[in-house]
Amino acid sequence: MAPRQTPKPRRISHSTIRRLSLYHRSLDILENAGVQALSSHKLGQIEGINPAQVRKDLSAFGSFGHRGFGYDVAKLKMQIAKILGLDQRWNLVLIGAGQLGNVFLNSEAFKKRNLLISKIFDDAPELIGKRINGVTVSHMDHIEREIDPGTDVLAIIAVSPNRVQSVIDRLGKVGVKGALYFAARAVNTPHNMVVLNQDISVELGTLTYHVKSRMGL
Amino acid sequence: MAPRQTPKPRRISHSTIRRLSLYHRSLDILENAGVQALSSHKLGQIEGINPAQVRKDLSAFGSFGHRGFGYDVAKLKMQIAKILGLDQRWNLVLIGAGQLGNVFLNSEAFKKRNLLISKIFDDAPELIGKRINGVTVSHMDHIEREIDPGTDVLAIIAVSPNRVQSVIDRLGKVGVKGALYFAARAVNTPHNMVVLNQDISVELGTLTYHVKSRMGL
Repeated sequence: MAPRQTPKPRRISHSTIRRLSLYHRSLDILENAGVQALSSHKLGQIEGINPAQVRKDLSAFGSFGHRGFGYDVAKLKMQIAKILGLDQRWNLVLIGAGQLGNVFLNSEAFKKRNLLISKIFDDAPELIGKRINGVTVSHMDHIEREIDPGTDVLAIIAVSPNRVQSVIDRLGKVGVKGALYFAARAVNTPHNMVVLNQDISVELGTLTYHVKSRMGL
Repeated sequence: MAPRQTPKPRRISHSTIRRLSLYHRSLDILENAGVQALSSHKLGQIEGINPAQVRKDLSAFGSFGHRGFGYDVAKLKMQIAKILGLDQRWNLVLIGAGQLGNVFLNSEAFKKRNLLISKIFDDAPELIGKRINGVTVSHMDHIEREIDPGTDVLAIIAVSPNRVQSVIDRLGKVGVKGALYFAARAVNTPHNMVVLNQDISVELGTLTYHVKSRMGL
């Protein structure tokens, strides 16, 4: 078959990106399980997404699958990884090595996605200087001195809610490009940064809504 | 003013529910800070949502604000809480009291939202029988015996990824109506349950995409 030119994706919505990220994690699990091909129907079923939506999402960046065979798992995973930027290694700076930070330090999901926690900051005296997963914990005061915006592009912020804004401001000034935080509050985002929030309390508010509706309450 | 009848909201999309849950958390913070009124513009600014979208979301369930005054913070918060089901108390069952489970046990966000962790299950011998926040940890084997579907409606699943599906299946059989889990994988949802997933690796895939796009990579 003649190679088909991949159309440049443009203005992809955040929901589409989120679905691509969902497909990526399922394809990764399937690839590791030795599955070589699957249909849009099956992929949609796994993630609870309409197959027509799956086909639309994938065709938008030039992946069409083959009738009677479906999508090549390894190839599709690689294509999606490339779009999401997960085909390259990213250094993650972890701010906060407490209970929450430790969950990420022990997460398999990071390694699988080429995400490497390369620096750790905290200000608990008992943590400073401690080595965790081969990384020595530095004092929060040294954020500006030790973060290199050339290599330390992303940050995970696992500090208490009232400290999140000041950490984001400092990271923005240093030149960190993206951050994810977990506190149950909105923050002001520095203009040169992408900041995402994963807040369990927001998710719980949607869960109670759906359960209430189901129960006819 | 004559009382206006509130139109019954119908078929609200998951994105709208998610935004309502975002408004709810901001309104809660503002109310505690003594703010009495705010505009759709301000509320949108706080959560990074277009003011027109805010007005559309709120007008959809009959809250219109007043020109020159804006929305009544306490009243709007209560209206949204009612829609989301957060005006009533919900019992949460926590499955897994390890590192991740402990993050939730210490979360202020739960109490603020009328969410009470009422039962805790684990299978680490050192945890069984231990009292955490006034709740005694039970063995996972006792899930079926100790969960009462009449009062234990929601579950937080904080066990290792390979055990999530079996826990969900068991909760579904017991009659638990909704669950939130954090593992980086899709699951099959029992037909009588609402299951939501909050997966940091999916969020990180969207973060790398946005940062990559910004950096022109």
